[in-house]
Amino acid sequence: MRFELKILGANSAIPTHNRYPSSQILSYHNTSYLIDCGEGTQMQMTTYKVKRSKINQIFISHLHGDHIFGLPGLITSFSLQGRVEDLSVYGPIGIKRYLNTIMEVSESHLTYTLYIHEIVPDANKKIFEDDQLIVYSFPLQHRIATSGYRFVEKRSKVNLDPKAIAANNLSGSQIKELREGGKVLSYNGSPLIINDIALPPKPQRSYAYCSDTVYDESIIENVKGSNFLYHEATYLHDMVSQARERMHSTAREAAQIATLSGVNNLIIGHYSSRYKDLQPLLDEAQSIFPNTALAIEGKSFEILHDN
Amino acid sequence: MRFELKILGANSAIPTHNRYPSSQILSYHNTSYLIDCGEGTQMQMTTYKVKRSKINQIFISHLHGDHIFGLPGLITSFSLQGRVEDLSVYGPIGIKRYLNTIMEVSESHLTYTLYIHEIVPDANKKIFEDDQLIVYSFPLQHRIATSGYRFVEKRSKVNLDPKAIAANNLSGSQIKELREGGKVLSYNGSPLIINDIALPPKPQRSYAYCSDTVYDESIIENVKGSNFLYHEATYLHDMVSQARERMHSTAREAAQIATLSGVNNLIIGHYSSRYKDLQPLLDEAQSIFPNTALAIEGKSFEILHDN
Repeated sequence: MRFELKILGANSAIPTHNRYPSSQILSYHNTSYLIDCGEGTQMQMTTYKVKRSKINQIFISHLHGDHIFGLPGLITSFSLQGRVEDLSVYGPIGIKRYLNTIMEVSESHLTYTLYIHEIVPDANKKIFEDDQLIVYSFPLQHRIATSGYRFVEKRSKVNLDPKAIAANNLSGSQIKELREGGKVLSYNGSPLIINDIALPPKPQRSYAYCSDTVYDESIIENVKGSNFLYHEATYLHDMVSQARERMHSTAREAAQIATLSGVNNLIIGHYSSRYKDLQPLLDEAQSIFPNTALAIEGKSFEILHDN
Repeated sequence: MRFELKILGANSAIPTHNRYPSSQILSYHNTSYLIDCGEGTQMQMTTYKVKRSKINQIFISHLHGDHIFGLPGLITSFSLQGRVEDLSVYGPIGIKRYLNTIMEVSESHLTYTLYIHEIVPDANKKIFEDDQLIVYSFPLQHRIATSGYRFVEKRSKVNLDPKAIAANNLSGSQIKELREGGKVLSYNGSPLIINDIALPPKPQRSYAYCSDTVYDESIIENVKGSNFLYHEATYLHDMVSQARERMHSTAREAAQIATLSGVNNLIIGHYSSRYKDLQPLLDEAQSIFPNTALAIEGKSFEILHDN
């Protein structure tokens, strides 16, 4: 199944240098999950041809404006476009009051059912599950209650081995029989069960999102082994004291967390508006963790078993 | 004094076709007044090089999302940029709860003082005045409490006549003396007062903003004689029944209000997303009121004494 991340916005608070505030689309097969929703997210969806109808869940990290000010517009536009499918929004306590107040004062009436799930990011815990993914929330240390998220694909029950199927000359109905727990006879008459034509299960791919956060090694346990880690890198490390004060991270610190977590790839973002050129942030992170990429509006990252 | 309108957004509810929701900058000399603030307004200000520091007043017509969802981002970005000057926002009742709730849940602390003035648009009344302009609010008929606004320049006290000054060979200090109510002697010894070197006062230029509204002839009295009238034209007239139902206007209706009001120029906007091509809306309005222009993002209109 195709598992892909697309960046819609990767700047910090003030939109500038044609960069938008935080927003990402994580797609798995034919479903999309929206992560954060800064101002202009719905415009970015149009620019980057994101199919809004595939979004049924939205995960909000925290209630700072650059992560939520696009939510009212998206939610009401869904309604103006005649949406009927339920929509769920997950986020820290206060998000219900935020959205309900806006819906009330703007006298907005939705054509669909909006569920707002308030979470307390106090521990690593499962907050959502569907046929494809499990989503975990875990605490981040920022100036306001903030949740990291980890999206883990569910293990497919059987990883069929094409070579074993060919060697035993099995038909589709025989494979179905084996899948359902039955037995069939092989070409030489010996009985086969499902494990005889299955490879070890593929590892579960996963993506972890950490924004916003100060440097915090308690993150490691919650993201370890992820194929991709997005970790904020608001500043270069020469501004580490400002980073600490504002409870943000530097590019070097993001790379340190990636190294200590044993992830395969790091994506950095949430850049301070002071950086027009992002190359120094990339250089700083890559000097510690070479598999680092910049989050750039419109850029996609395919999450593969071997990356 | 230069008096100019710049369009930042002119689409109705759903941003589409590269069009943004409602927002305009009215500039008089070196002050700017923001009218409505749909999502993305702060990005449009960057795109069209609007100097944010010149904005001290914001006028909101009504609390539908496409007129207010850019306000939280703009207000907090002002603060992140270190603004210290007071900022005033005028809008219908509910705007205080809207902004205060958002500031509370996002734990935003502003570096400047924000005054929120709630108005009841029940009559034509003066709501603001500075050295340059007087702003009047008047009621519009829409699905929610809505205010039209009229911006009228203050009459400059003296319209000096360069020819009379030259003919009398007056110095700067003599003109100052006359301005202050004194007398000076002319080149031939006769006494002069200020009226001897002044032309009749120039007419006061004005701009009226009417969005959103159903066709309503009570508007005429409130906007008559304006140099420019912005009147919403969400639909073509073949959709007049939908316009009535949603309490919007058609291009033909906007042109009728312009004709009956004796304004010099009409600007139409707030286009339904169904219209990719806006020419038919312009054609329909111009067939009744030739001096009609389309509001287009980035376009400016200079308000002159003779237009």
